[in-house]
Amino acid sequence: MRLVTLDEIRAAATSVDGVTLRTPLVPCRWDDGLALKAESLQPVGSFKLRGATHAVASLTPDARARGVVTHSSGNHGQALAYAARAAGAPCTVVIPDGAPAIKIDQVRALGATVVIVPPAERLTEARRLAAEGGLTLVPPFDDRSVIAGQGTVGLEILEQAPDVEVVLVPVGGGGLASGVATAVKALAPHVAVVGVEPEYAADARDSLAAGEVVVWDLADTYRTSADGLRTNLSELTLAHLSRHLDGIVTVTEDEIRTANARLVREARLVVEPSGAVTTAARMFRADELPGGRTVAVVSGGNIDPALLATLATL
Amino acid sequence: MRLVTLDEIRAAATSVDGVTLRTPLVPCRWDDGLALKAESLQPVGSFKLRGATHAVASLTPDARARGVVTHSSGNHGQALAYAARAAGAPCTVVIPDGAPAIKIDQVRALGATVVIVPPAERLTEARRLAAEGGLTLVPPFDDRSVIAGQGTVGLEILEQAPDVEVVLVPVGGGGLASGVATAVKALAPHVAVVGVEPEYAADARDSLAAGEVVVWDLADTYRTSADGLRTNLSELTLAHLSRHLDGIVTVTEDEIRTANARLVREARLVVEPSGAVTTAARMFRADELPGGRTVAVVSGGNIDPALLATLATL
Repeated sequence: MRLVTLDEIRAAATSVDGVTLRTPLVPCRWDDGLALKAESLQPVGSFKLRGATHAVASLTPDARARGVVTHSSGNHGQALAYAARAAGAPCTVVIPDGAPAIKIDQVRALGATVVIVPPAERLTEARRLAAEGGLTLVPPFDDRSVIAGQGTVGLEILEQAPDVEVVLVPVGGGGLASGVATAVKALAPHVAVVGVEPEYAADARDSLAAGEVVVWDLADTYRTSADGLRTNLSELTLAHLSRHLDGIVTVTEDEIRTANARLVREARLVVEPSGAVTTAARMFRADELPGGRTVAVVSGGNIDPALLATLATL
Repeated sequence: MRLVTLDEIRAAATSVDGVTLRTPLVPCRWDDGLALKAESLQPVGSFKLRGATHAVASLTPDARARGVVTHSSGNHGQALAYAARAAGAPCTVVIPDGAPAIKIDQVRALGATVVIVPPAERLTEARRLAAEGGLTLVPPFDDRSVIAGQGTVGLEILEQAPDVEVVLVPVGGGGLASGVATAVKALAPHVAVVGVEPEYAADARDSLAAGEVVVWDLADTYRTSADGLRTNLSELTLAHLSRHLDGIVTVTEDEIRTANARLVREARLVVEPSGAVTTAARMFRADELPGGRTVAVVSGGNIDPALLATLATL
């Protein structure tokens, strides 16, 4: 399988310039050896804007004029709506009925068309819209241009922290981890790149051990609060992780919660559980990690307000 | 009175490099014309680290070896402790008895010596320590090197947003506003710099109107939640603001609260009320402000956890 290259990630860096935020590396107050790559500060609250922006930028002018479609109602859906608006492209987001009204409103507020269907028909409907309307389907992670876009996080880390020794990156579908690991290993092969998963969604660990995509059941992965990390890998992301990742660790729900509260209260970053797993790994799994100057990718900040209120006073 | 110069602020930029964070300009999701200079992300949670760092860097090697002292138990006290530790200088912070234990713990955790005295004796005790121990008293704002340090916020804004047209800056003792206005007006005199105060601590507005320092009573200023902005100006900061500020607006407690909640929930920044006044001005006082691309200085993030919990679900 042909993997995403450094040149593709560099092209993505040109695409995202001026649309995404060059997020800061925030030094961690309680750990001098840790800095936080705060992707939670992106306009739509997550790194997903990078991949979506590059995917839209990679279209031909004709395809861009016809528009894009996706079936993710989460961070990727919002990111694609934002990226499409920035590029002047139409965008349709297929959302399952029963989704929270606030998610639908947020996507609409970004100028996208919302199509509501029964949950089981999401992908079919997105494919139908793509086929019939000439729209380009932009998947959340199983896509070369999306992976290249997420890889710009890795480029920025090396520019902002040239002496970094360890990069910790959350693993859901694997798009972010694939892109970051590709960029880091191409430019600084001595830097260790380690994936982090919730113990309730350790499908990437199992897939890497088995050498093939191991699928975890939704009933199992729904036990983790890190809702952005419940997704399984694809063949494409597994191929990148098998090649580039130095290891993978898992963290418990208690560890995620403690790290999340600390990020809110001491780093002053509003972070969602999926974004807190890397900090949790550094706090609680140091014995399983290489030592040295570490950057934790804090992937997103779209936290439920009630949970944020709880964490604030934890 | 001799005012702080652009050259002094440029020297401060060299001092703070590597100690303070070059905070990001975060684009504001609900207002395309607004960007947030997120000083809340500084290691001690506020811009105060800039002035404290430059004040320590400006000492002779002998004076640095003897150490520094201050009588502020708030953001400046923590900032000075952090800056002194970074420079290898001893630091003493005089704290009034009755101060929250957490504040004392935080200052001690940064390696500073804490001296606890009755509230009325804070300044006297700090001066006594300075005189007897040869320590340098670093005041929170009434100091040229502190003002120059805070001015580095202005330099960064112009570098990060060369097309900025309006800068909004909170006014407490006036150190931040003095430094920012000096930097911006020296390099980009066409950019409007406007101060923002709570209506319950509008002493700078009154002082600018009167042409002399007008002192508001503590009983009045304690009505504002923006505890960092209760302080009155000094002759030195008034002179800077009279010379450089294009105007000053006040915001209500309701406006501060609404802006603060929005910063937490939609910009994903943990911000304290003092840091939310500039966003409140942009949201609610647009008719009193010049139009155009605006940067709001979000000065700090040391919010009471119970208030943060309330704002999260407001």
